[in-house]
Amino acid sequence: MKSESVFQRDRYPTGLMLGLGMYAMMSVACAEHPPQPPFSALPQSRLVDLTHPFGSETIVWPTEQDIKVIVQHAEDMPGGYYYASNRLELPEHGGTHMDAPIHFARGTQTLDQIPIDRLVGGAVRIDVADQCANDRDYRVEIRDLERWESRHGRIPVHAIVLLDTGFGRLWPARQQYLGTELRGAEGVDALHFPGLHPDAAVWLVRERQVKAVGIDTASIDYGRSTKFETHVALLSHNVPVFENLADLSGLPNHGFDVIALPMKIAGGTGGPLRIIAIVPEPR
Amino acid sequence: MKSESVFQRDRYPTGLMLGLGMYAMMSVACAEHPPQPPFSALPQSRLVDLTHPFGSETIVWPTEQDIKVIVQHAEDMPGGYYYASNRLELPEHGGTHMDAPIHFARGTQTLDQIPIDRLVGGAVRIDVADQCANDRDYRVEIRDLERWESRHGRIPVHAIVLLDTGFGRLWPARQQYLGTELRGAEGVDALHFPGLHPDAAVWLVRERQVKAVGIDTASIDYGRSTKFETHVALLSHNVPVFENLADLSGLPNHGFDVIALPMKIAGGTGGPLRIIAIVPEPR
Repeated sequence: MKSESVFQRDRYPTGLMLGLGMYAMMSVACAEHPPQPPFSALPQSRLVDLTHPFGSETIVWPTEQDIKVIVQHAEDMPGGYYYASNRLELPEHGGTHMDAPIHFARGTQTLDQIPIDRLVGGAVRIDVADQCANDRDYRVEIRDLERWESRHGRIPVHAIVLLDTGFGRLWPARQQYLGTELRGAEGVDALHFPGLHPDAAVWLVRERQVKAVGIDTASIDYGRSTKFETHVALLSHNVPVFENLADLSGLPNHGFDVIALPMKIAGGTGGPLRIIAIVPEPR
Repeated sequence: MKSESVFQRDRYPTGLMLGLGMYAMMSVACAEHPPQPPFSALPQSRLVDLTHPFGSETIVWPTEQDIKVIVQHAEDMPGGYYYASNRLELPEHGGTHMDAPIHFARGTQTLDQIPIDRLVGGAVRIDVADQCANDRDYRVEIRDLERWESRHGRIPVHAIVLLDTGFGRLWPARQQYLGTELRGAEGVDALHFPGLHPDAAVWLVRERQVKAVGIDTASIDYGRSTKFETHVALLSHNVPVFENLADLSGLPNHGFDVIALPMKIAGGTGGPLRIIAIVPEPR
């Protein structure tokens, strides 16, 4: 018995004979409705998946190849069982993914080195959908963050900040989402989508010590960027970035937790991300 | 303001002027130690990563190709910034991964279709390391589960069950972990590692309605299996399987939560999994 068990021993009948007796009784009397000890510490909650599916339709950067899911098996096997499996080929930075610090900051953390503590915790949603609907080259500014705080209170230190530009709802329509269907360098030149202004990124890092920043567009820098200053501002301070998040409009403005778990690629500069929100429901 | 916000409006001063006044005061007086409203509903906890890193050393099934992480960029760019990125090639079922029901059960859920509710929640660890140290072809039996219950209480319905065979600590030594370094069909014939007996799988599904089952070996069926009956028993009932989990010995026997988030592959038969445990710490 490990001492780190969080169930206090004295809260349950733990004498072996008593335990066996209880178990035998429960097995007979309650086989269909067994008792449930309080075994989860998570709040009563609604889980919200903030992840786009990965496949050949997944939007990738104009210079990247599309994701391939290559079927190996989907058939009855000689052993008498059905068996299905695939292989995958993909860029680290396509679809809903995380940028590791090393993506834009030499010598910093790779994807597998990011402490998971940074990727789990209380989060806020900054709704800038109106601004971005009016201007698809919009950059979220410090005044947008201050306006949010004037309504909802100060962004707590060590929050995960999600920027809701409304563009997550345009996925997977490439023209609407990226502003272009062109590929290659020509496609990069034609990108038009909102992002986070570098000054606001510095503010979030310095003034609010954010854990991580996410956005529902293809890049935390807006589509017109050529120097990727917002990436540098965040990643050089070990603040990971989540990109191509799914529709965020189902989230409250605050009072929820985010769990953002990337594929643990050794030496990864980024990679596929599964990200969910845990939104407590009133009991 | 969305009505689904879980912070009750009357718990905080929300008048705009009052809010602005508070904010101004906090900015001046508490710039270095801003107040932290209770913005996370997660318990005070220790996060434990149960995931092996992915890379060329990752153990894959003997018939699979090794994982490739192909460097695209790791250099200063003409725009004046550093940039690094990779491409990935991998099987769905290598390293720490999840099996979706469709992997062995025709017409059932693909990886992206598994409800996330199944992948999040209270968990138990069944320690069978002694049995597996004595017999590397050991299969966890119903009596092992009953023995656990006689010590720790009944496995709650809808638990996530993790089988700690001790083999997670042998990773990444292929010979010790799989029982062979051979590849191809010859390698499959030489596999020796523990798994879950099909009868015990049926018991977990029928008698305890488990959400999911995980193991720290390369397969939920033991290495000698040729018919994969444990896979079929679990997956045909939409119980997902986690394989190649990392060392589980740091977990308590119960009283912790698991968050298991796979890459959301459209039509995936399985895929890379990032899995963590949330172990509440006494306050």
